[in-house]
Amino acid sequence: MENAALDATGMAYVSGDCDRRSDMREDAPAIAALRGAPDARAVVIARDQAVLRGEGESAAALHGIDQAAAIGAVRLEAFLGLTPAGAPRFAFWLDDGAVEMREDASDGFLDRRALVVPGRTDLRLADLRSLAMKGAFDPPTLSMIATAKALISWHATHGFCAKCGAKSHAAAAGWRRECAACQTQHFPRTDPVVIMLVSDGDHCLLGRQARFPKGFYSALAGFLEPGETIEAAVKREVLEEAGVLCRDVRYLASQPWPFPASLMIGCFASASDRALTIDHKELEDARWFSRAEVRQMLAGDHPDGLASPGKMAIARTLLQTWSDA
Amino acid sequence: MENAALDATGMAYVSGDCDRRSDMREDAPAIAALRGAPDARAVVIARDQAVLRGEGESAAALHGIDQAAAIGAVRLEAFLGLTPAGAPRFAFWLDDGAVEMREDASDGFLDRRALVVPGRTDLRLADLRSLAMKGAFDPPTLSMIATAKALISWHATHGFCAKCGAKSHAAAAGWRRECAACQTQHFPRTDPVVIMLVSDGDHCLLGRQARFPKGFYSALAGFLEPGETIEAAVKREVLEEAGVLCRDVRYLASQPWPFPASLMIGCFASASDRALTIDHKELEDARWFSRAEVRQMLAGDHPDGLASPGKMAIARTLLQTWSDA
Repeated sequence: MENAALDATGMAYVSGDCDRRSDMREDAPAIAALRGAPDARAVVIARDQAVLRGEGESAAALHGIDQAAAIGAVRLEAFLGLTPAGAPRFAFWLDDGAVEMREDASDGFLDRRALVVPGRTDLRLADLRSLAMKGAFDPPTLSMIATAKALISWHATHGFCAKCGAKSHAAAAGWRRECAACQTQHFPRTDPVVIMLVSDGDHCLLGRQARFPKGFYSALAGFLEPGETIEAAVKREVLEEAGVLCRDVRYLASQPWPFPASLMIGCFASASDRALTIDHKELEDARWFSRAEVRQMLAGDHPDGLASPGKMAIARTLLQTWSDA
Repeated sequence: MENAALDATGMAYVSGDCDRRSDMREDAPAIAALRGAPDARAVVIARDQAVLRGEGESAAALHGIDQAAAIGAVRLEAFLGLTPAGAPRFAFWLDDGAVEMREDASDGFLDRRALVVPGRTDLRLADLRSLAMKGAFDPPTLSMIATAKALISWHATHGFCAKCGAKSHAAAAGWRRECAACQTQHFPRTDPVVIMLVSDGDHCLLGRQARFPKGFYSALAGFLEPGETIEAAVKREVLEEAGVLCRDVRYLASQPWPFPASLMIGCFASASDRALTIDHKELEDARWFSRAEVRQMLAGDHPDGLASPGKMAIARTLLQTWSDA
């Protein structure tokens, strides 16, 4: 699925427009010069959330470089690339201590329990899911925040060399970690996940996990394992979770899913029969839905109040594409 | 691309037929019972190579469990699943010290410099590329060896917790590592790689790295980065390596590539123009090839001796599919 078609779906995190300029990542003086440019801006991440300026509709995710550095102690600066207009973009990762949890804060972006920057009422924090659901930012900005979040989550959980146990350090403008003890280079991790809409004629298979909101059903999904093709992973997951053999796997689209660092690979597949054997460790329920019922769920007027994922999720793109066919 | 079509391409590592039975991985008594079954067999891996019984055409990759355990000290046993006939399959990872490098060994499977099991002239070691190129095993067995190799390479490079630096230990029958110090669970890593055949009308773009054999050209490829869709990664890599803008990215097939643990995601893309700006840090050369020339390369009768990847590689599937179109 091409960019224009992807944008039309409303899927979140798919519309990055930065030129990443990976060729510059090793060139510290050039990166420093870009950092000093008047149009340089930074996305600021603390404890997996984005630090925003201002409130509600007018909130902004981009901070001037000096302003970003003044929010709190910076653990890492990563170079994200240049905008189509050539403006440098960075990701700043703040020390956990720069923010704290408050029980009483609440506004359009925040739950009752929320992270705040102490003493800075001009700043708010928001998690990536909320930003996507609220459509708070233009799609390229949301993609940039997602890239920053995925990259920084990796640094946050990979401070040590997995090969020898020594502390590792960031390199290549935030795109690599290196171990001085054993010389191993480590690169950001992205986990491929298959997510598939299995259909049989005019019906498709959806499931729900116990943690989902009441009445909410989505496409089945699971991590691809070593030694598997995308197609094999789709078949294995559907067989494991629902007991359904499927065939004719067709790729539709992919989506970065920065929770913490997945790549959702969206596919269709055809079921060989409709008998279900549900793995209740994975799914609370799974069942076949008619096309008419799926259309009601997408429109939000299902008579039993059943619901499906919002536009931010690739599951909805699969459902919408199938129900339109 | 479906299984039957994949098998017809000759692509390596794509034809796994084990039921992985991930539901059994936490059930140590059940795994132990399977291990004791008379039809249980193990793939044996040492220093990233497979230990084979016998020589040349009659070499076998599967060992009886007791025989496998007697080859050398076993660092890890992983449960790979059940064959279609229900026979249990395991991967055994041997201590590095169980094998040693010999300068003089040489036979159909071996280079002049080769790993051997000291004192065991009935055993040979072979790397996964050689096994694939020689078509030494039936495709499901080769896939099983590839899964074992990818899984064990991960253990071999992830003995420590990346989050806290403490030693981690294997769990879930070899499909997880756990850190007793900080309780983090770690799962096998698979790195998505995009590999793409870019075309413009009757010509396609191929490149060669300096390390390739003389006259050898292949499809461009590169690692997908955090925050990218498959389509965005294809466009970025082609722009970075060859200076070509492309559009209309179409997924064709995927292939596990256990060197050490990639997932090759094969795509077509259309070039917006043919002007090239080659990144000579990545590529020694890149140029446009006519369909007639590609057919000669695939047939092995190019007048200048130019060559393209063998059937084991997804690059050839892309080239073959394009040249047949």
